[in-house]
Amino acid sequence: MSKLVIVGTVAFDAIETPFGKTDKILGGAATFIGLAASQFHVNGAIVSVVGGDFPQEDIDMLASKGLNIEGLEVVEDGKTFFWSGKYHNDMNSRDTLVTELNVLENFNPIVPDNYKDSEVVMLGNLHPLVQLGVIEQMTEPKLVVLDTMNFWMDCALPELMQVIAKVDVITINDEEARQLTGEYSLVNAAKKIHTMGPKYVVIKKGEHGALLFHEDEMFYAPALPLAEVFDPTGAGDTFAGGFTGYLAKTGDYSFENMKTAIINGSALASFCVEKFGTERLVGLSRKELHQRLQQFKNLTQFDIELT
Amino acid sequence: MSKLVIVGTVAFDAIETPFGKTDKILGGAATFIGLAASQFHVNGAIVSVVGGDFPQEDIDMLASKGLNIEGLEVVEDGKTFFWSGKYHNDMNSRDTLVTELNVLENFNPIVPDNYKDSEVVMLGNLHPLVQLGVIEQMTEPKLVVLDTMNFWMDCALPELMQVIAKVDVITINDEEARQLTGEYSLVNAAKKIHTMGPKYVVIKKGEHGALLFHEDEMFYAPALPLAEVFDPTGAGDTFAGGFTGYLAKTGDYSFENMKTAIINGSALASFCVEKFGTERLVGLSRKELHQRLQQFKNLTQFDIELT
Repeated sequence: MSKLVIVGTVAFDAIETPFGKTDKILGGAATFIGLAASQFHVNGAIVSVVGGDFPQEDIDMLASKGLNIEGLEVVEDGKTFFWSGKYHNDMNSRDTLVTELNVLENFNPIVPDNYKDSEVVMLGNLHPLVQLGVIEQMTEPKLVVLDTMNFWMDCALPELMQVIAKVDVITINDEEARQLTGEYSLVNAAKKIHTMGPKYVVIKKGEHGALLFHEDEMFYAPALPLAEVFDPTGAGDTFAGGFTGYLAKTGDYSFENMKTAIINGSALASFCVEKFGTERLVGLSRKELHQRLQQFKNLTQFDIELT
Repeated sequence: MSKLVIVGTVAFDAIETPFGKTDKILGGAATFIGLAASQFHVNGAIVSVVGGDFPQEDIDMLASKGLNIEGLEVVEDGKTFFWSGKYHNDMNSRDTLVTELNVLENFNPIVPDNYKDSEVVMLGNLHPLVQLGVIEQMTEPKLVVLDTMNFWMDCALPELMQVIAKVDVITINDEEARQLTGEYSLVNAAKKIHTMGPKYVVIKKGEHGALLFHEDEMFYAPALPLAEVFDPTGAGDTFAGGFTGYLAKTGDYSFENMKTAIINGSALASFCVEKFGTERLVGLSRKELHQRLQQFKNLTQFDIELT
């Protein structure tokens, strides 16, 4: 098993969907990534920052999942990052209602000494300079995975390109891949992104699944078709956490093993959206995950007989 | 091997895409279905109608593929059905420029005597009453497959519902499934369509692949991610033709075999869009199809180890 460093937000979210709304609940990219990765009992550390208003019980919950929280800075006189959003009826688009950076504004990530030699690094969505700051602290990373979003393309593109040049894998959604490359075809977009640095490109297509590109090879992981999507918040982070958690657990960074890692990420994401926030992930059992992996197998496997 | 009856248009198309435009070329649902099914050397008959302006060489080409053309009526003093359309830059939407029904207006389909006992019937997109007229001529069909479109939901819904009640399989695209059922979730849409008649529901999602639903089982076939889609015309018909051609060839109408049939349909559709009209299908070799089936296998297959 390899060690895993996770950097990203630990936050409060307030969410409104057609099914209901929440007060401030636990959220943040590093939270979802960590909870997903913890399904594989990895030796993982969360590097993030919260304010004095952040409940000790949430910190304890993360620690109880086996996640190291030495790198989770608590700024006692600061407030935790807060995001509020409202999903439209089709659940594929949302409006951001509130974004309060708070303690995130001056966040200086510190990787705990014992995790500087981690093989796997998961850079959750954050300012590219913060992501760069984490890469620079790592002594011998074997697999650096980057998640990002269109916001940084719009307002910090040069810094984002610097990070992209340094990572092995990028996870990005389809519209963002098109924006980053100017290519409509995802095959061509992935080719362009390869030239920017990453040897592996994961394009997330929401309810349509995800594509993995490496050299001339492709892999297509479906999303599980669901009767209801209750709350999509954190699904992309959960996917990334399942992906990197599985890779850290197995220590095998081959294309073949990444296929299985993506299926694990997709399976975990399919749970995430069943309830508000982290609720479903926190209570998830290994047995439930195994059953869902079997569903993914049934969903996609077929025999070809070349008649 | 089972006999296969194919009903649908045999037509002229004029197509404009971002890559170029054509004069009147060979098109029509039954044409694409027949060409796709002929890859499996099935004993298939086309039931359709053309005008005196239809080239004998196109009829000869269909016959040369092993398709029976006794049921292809030629109205000497009539004109062949003509459709013209223009695709937008993203290739996912198009404008219809011209629709001339011509001989299709009074089309009375006659299934050749020797094909009335066919096991498999493929009802290509046409007026629901024409589709019903074909079902009524069949003496012992084992699998009736229906393709339709939103046009008939808008202007002949009661007749369409009559056909839907009589078929075993429906193929329909995602937006049409939502329109027909009022359900946004495709899982829920498929459940509603089951109650209308079809035991098997295939929902086509274009570049995102296709879903097969049967009772509580699901199968997800990806579309092959392509660098360029040259001309999408006929892709849905080609998919349906590959699906029914494979089923007729094997005579096995189980859910498991339908998975393989859908992969064959998707593989053939991925060729169809590479050139204008029927060009790519007419020249397609078995070896090319086998290579592409292997690509689909590589694209989707993975190992799960329940760690």
